[in-house]
Amino acid sequence: MSASAYVDEKRLAQRLAAMARIGATENGGVNRQALSAEDAAAQRQLVQWGEALGLKPSIDAIGNLFLRLEGADAGAPPVLTGSHLDSQPTGGKFDGVFGVLAAFEAVEAIIASGVKPRVSIDIVAWMNEEGSRFAPGMMGSAVFAGERALDATLAVVDKHDVSVKEALAEVRESLRDVPERVLGERVSAYVEAHIEQGPHLENEGLTIGVVTGIQGKRTFKVRVDGEAAHAGTSTRAERKDALLAAIAMVQALADEMHDDEDIVKFTVGRFDVKPSAPSVVPSAVDFSIDLRHPDSEMLRVLGDRIAPICEANAGVCAVRVTELSSAISLDFPEPMRALVRQAALRLDLPHRDILSTAGHDARYLHYVCPSAMIFVPSHLGLTHCEAEYTSSSDLAAGAKVLADVLRELTA
Amino acid sequence: MSASAYVDEKRLAQRLAAMARIGATENGGVNRQALSAEDAAAQRQLVQWGEALGLKPSIDAIGNLFLRLEGADAGAPPVLTGSHLDSQPTGGKFDGVFGVLAAFEAVEAIIASGVKPRVSIDIVAWMNEEGSRFAPGMMGSAVFAGERALDATLAVVDKHDVSVKEALAEVRESLRDVPERVLGERVSAYVEAHIEQGPHLENEGLTIGVVTGIQGKRTFKVRVDGEAAHAGTSTRAERKDALLAAIAMVQALADEMHDDEDIVKFTVGRFDVKPSAPSVVPSAVDFSIDLRHPDSEMLRVLGDRIAPICEANAGVCAVRVTELSSAISLDFPEPMRALVRQAALRLDLPHRDILSTAGHDARYLHYVCPSAMIFVPSHLGLTHCEAEYTSSSDLAAGAKVLADVLRELTA
Repeated sequence: MSASAYVDEKRLAQRLAAMARIGATENGGVNRQALSAEDAAAQRQLVQWGEALGLKPSIDAIGNLFLRLEGADAGAPPVLTGSHLDSQPTGGKFDGVFGVLAAFEAVEAIIASGVKPRVSIDIVAWMNEEGSRFAPGMMGSAVFAGERALDATLAVVDKHDVSVKEALAEVRESLRDVPERVLGERVSAYVEAHIEQGPHLENEGLTIGVVTGIQGKRTFKVRVDGEAAHAGTSTRAERKDALLAAIAMVQALADEMHDDEDIVKFTVGRFDVKPSAPSVVPSAVDFSIDLRHPDSEMLRVLGDRIAPICEANAGVCAVRVTELSSAISLDFPEPMRALVRQAALRLDLPHRDILSTAGHDARYLHYVCPSAMIFVPSHLGLTHCEAEYTSSSDLAAGAKVLADVLRELTA
Repeated sequence: MSASAYVDEKRLAQRLAAMARIGATENGGVNRQALSAEDAAAQRQLVQWGEALGLKPSIDAIGNLFLRLEGADAGAPPVLTGSHLDSQPTGGKFDGVFGVLAAFEAVEAIIASGVKPRVSIDIVAWMNEEGSRFAPGMMGSAVFAGERALDATLAVVDKHDVSVKEALAEVRESLRDVPERVLGERVSAYVEAHIEQGPHLENEGLTIGVVTGIQGKRTFKVRVDGEAAHAGTSTRAERKDALLAAIAMVQALADEMHDDEDIVKFTVGRFDVKPSAPSVVPSAVDFSIDLRHPDSEMLRVLGDRIAPICEANAGVCAVRVTELSSAISLDFPEPMRALVRQAALRLDLPHRDILSTAGHDARYLHYVCPSAMIFVPSHLGLTHCEAEYTSSSDLAAGAKVLADVLRELTA
């Protein structure tokens, strides 16, 4: 029997439910931000499950967690599979964690199939994919791939001025029995299962998305500096109101990014005002910009308009626009996509090619090894929110495709 | 000699400097928010100084702190004088605390003059004038005057969900030797010294402002509800972006409140976004509105336009506008203003009548007893910021006028 035959829908659902209890929110979602106590607890849970299955855990210097199923040829570069355990502050039960537990389920199925893989398989939980506590996201995979420097990444701080290094030391302490692993070890391939985070598969009655590539994205932080003043005594002429200037910028940017085709994705997700008191004219605003477009050239053109538009709307305030990350749209190699497509075909699962409009750790792995992604449907496309939902059978279908793809890659 | 002759400029400056060290910020300002550890420390300092002078401390149920100089006629309702010790998060060294320490200096001068007042004098530090931690401001004076209910005020929470009641219990614990005082005891008059918080006295080379009244003010909180969504996958048509809706509202409000004469004061000081993550479309925004106008009718008309404008700009989001406070413009009684004017005249201090465009605790005292305010210059009109500055001689001039006015009121 193929490995996928040993995938157990119920076991996968139970593990997902157990993980969802770690950082559970009142409204049925999950708050398990990167390197928080909840993230650490989820990692401990994963290590525990892995040890029960004979998998060997290790952690690298940026906090990526690995569980290895040893292959017959211990010297061959391993195949990597996984995703991330961290969530948005009001995230759902599937984004990220599904990819990790689908990998776990696939490995358990491969073990149960009784055929020892030639090449080792590493299940991986990447550190800080979401980027909500420490910006930007995909830190663990970016450092793993050598696309971000380790030291600079460890120095990033959250809004309470806690650094990645400090937070990581705490997580590491609670996993002190797990050995250290060399950062960025050579790997032969990467496969990541994920919920679609869009409505297309569900709308078309499909179970599997063969991911063709990842939409490009540029992120910025904008700092607007004005001057604090008394809300009752300072006249409009005297004021340097950072909030009104920032609002004019966001409004102008939203107008500029408005396309009739509704392809541009423009989001201001953070907008922090200082000193944030009702009777004080704001002295400063920091806001974030997340800009995406499937066409890399359009992304370049639109992103380059951001700084001039902010400057044109600053009025009496000062503004500084900093680009945090820039990623062009990328295509996964056709042979990797074919492996996913053929597995879906053999399993008789309805599928189609699909572009990922969200970013994933697979973006960075794409730079170091042949990579692929497998999508399963997201109910109504809801994601990054507590209402995220995918049926257990769709989740199991994704794990089955993954198990068979891993089997091929490690034979 | 008159009581004012005993006012000591250096002693007043030293006490102000000592208070400025409690909650001092890096940039030379003060962060001593209501009922914080710093506020409690400032209160303990005041009690200590008072006890050295033989003043009797007491605290009422809403946390207003009093220091009494006993008069010859212990049964007569006391004269109140003071202001507040709490500050904005990045406040200055004079707003509020000057009024308390000017009162202290005036009382010390009266004692030194050797004439025992007939009527008792209560120095008061009102709880939470600023309203930056617990909204709205002027809580202590409003409850004292019976304009706000005690229980509802104790139930107000800060952004960490700490209630006034809980925070007050902690402050009270650190002042456990200070006896409780009946809330809202009858008083015969109230006089508050304060920095102008505007540039007029300085621009005109004057030392004393005889405050004619207080500009009206209406405050609102606005809640905008949208829906969290993924920044990369959700299309514009699918989004309910609470931030873009809130920004459209603020922009439309700012346009509506724009008057060529520059008299309207419109401020959005807080603007809190949820969940506040760069790659999540905001699900909700809470923002504050502070609206002031010296003409009560204009204030009514403009304030009543706020809810319809917010609703008209909500788009696919929901909006709820709540009025937190409404205060018409008020005039202090002419006999009280005359006392201040005559004291300034006798002391040969250049002065003029002036409207307070900022709110003060004197607003609420005005409802229960004849009240007055004395202004001293603010350098460049800078206030509610770390750069706030008034010269020691101007501060002492204010304390001198206050000492003589108190002498008249308690004779």
